[in-house]
Amino acid sequence: MTRLEQQINFIIEVDKLKNIIRQNYLVDGSRKEDDADHSWHLALMCAILSEHANEKIDVLKTMVMVLIHDLVEIDAGDTYAYDSNANVSKRERELEAADRIFRLLPADQAQEIRALWDEFEEGRTPEAKFAVTLDKVQPLLLNSGSDGKSWKEHKVTLSQILKRNENTGEGSQALWDYGYQLIQKNVDNNNIINQ
Amino acid sequence: MTRLEQQINFIIEVDKLKNIIRQNYLVDGSRKEDDADHSWHLALMCAILSEHANEKIDVLKTMVMVLIHDLVEIDAGDTYAYDSNANVSKRERELEAADRIFRLLPADQAQEIRALWDEFEEGRTPEAKFAVTLDKVQPLLLNSGSDGKSWKEHKVTLSQILKRNENTGEGSQALWDYGYQLIQKNVDNNNIINQ
Ligand SMILES: [Ca+2]
Repeated sequence: MTRLEQQINFIIEVDKLKNIIRQNYLVDGSRKEDDADHSWHLALMCAILSEHANEKIDVLKTMVMVLIHDLVEIDAGDTYAYDSNANVSKRERELEAADRIFRLLPADQAQEIRALWDEFEEGRTPEAKFAVTLDKVQPLLLNSGSDGKSWKEHKVTLSQILKRNENTGEGSQALWDYGYQLIQKNVDNNNIINQ
Repeated sequence: MTRLEQQINFIIEVDKLKNIIRQNYLVDGSRKEDDADHSWHLALMCAILSEHANEKIDVLKTMVMVLIHDLVEIDAGDTYAYDSNANVSKRERELEAADRIFRLLPADQAQEIRALWDEFEEGRTPEAKFAVTLDKVQPLLLNSGSDGKSWKEHKVTLSQILKRNENTGEGSQALWDYGYQLIQKNVDNNNIINQ
């Protein structure tokens, strides 16, 4: 197989990300979002909002990181943030998926993309912290925009959301301040249970 | 309105791209692709395939270009490539859409993103040429992968496809060679009408 054929096989395989459905709805509430939609939205947010990162970031690196951060869900599925049973086995399923999917690429790119995914998962570099912030703030925008549709369906509480977002400010205090204000608004109008 | 609020309003508005449905199907044929899926796929292709560009490109610039290239369709809709009536009014509708949508951003970013969209539309720089190549080759991968489902539904002919792709090789000869081979394969198995 040529290098280009390997790359194209990867590009075709990742088409499956468009069939991985998340729990949050689009802003208009018409349907749940898929992982490819979500990843596109994060990449565009990265381009527009990078000035709000707490530390200076490499924008290209961060954009590639968010474009690939959910590819493991092709095999491992989307684990709902507030499903604690499923989250126990999540890490193992995602590691197996990373081994299979990234290795479709030529060895140098497989290693590079895998390293970016590991960096995102570890969440320690400025780029990974900002990517994590985007990944947490984007569903807040969609959930609030759709009048809390997903929060209400799952009877989500304020303490669950705050626990899930305990590190969200590390990538961008400004974006977390904005997100926190949205959360408060949705507590006030009973879209989020105040406990 | 603060700068961040303007940016967030844009980010929320462009959520509508996820509801713009294209004519081509996903590789598994399960549904038609939406514009956000498509834009995500192009951005990832850009990250993986940039080495095949005919000329050296600025990868970050090209990625932002493909992430925003279809935003005008939020107002103007997706015009099917082989619908010649709709294509007459397309340019005007898209210019109006660009005026409205990009101006949601702070002035400096509105200007920057509008310039990127104009550059894509003009197709003259190495980045725009490569973005156009990706935009043309990606649906070939999906159409061929789904056994020509969309081509067969629209009774598309080889000459229509070749006319539409007369500039596809300008961004990447290697990707167009690959795409051309896929087209030939789909002529051979009657997914594309040989005329
Ligand atoms: Ca989608």
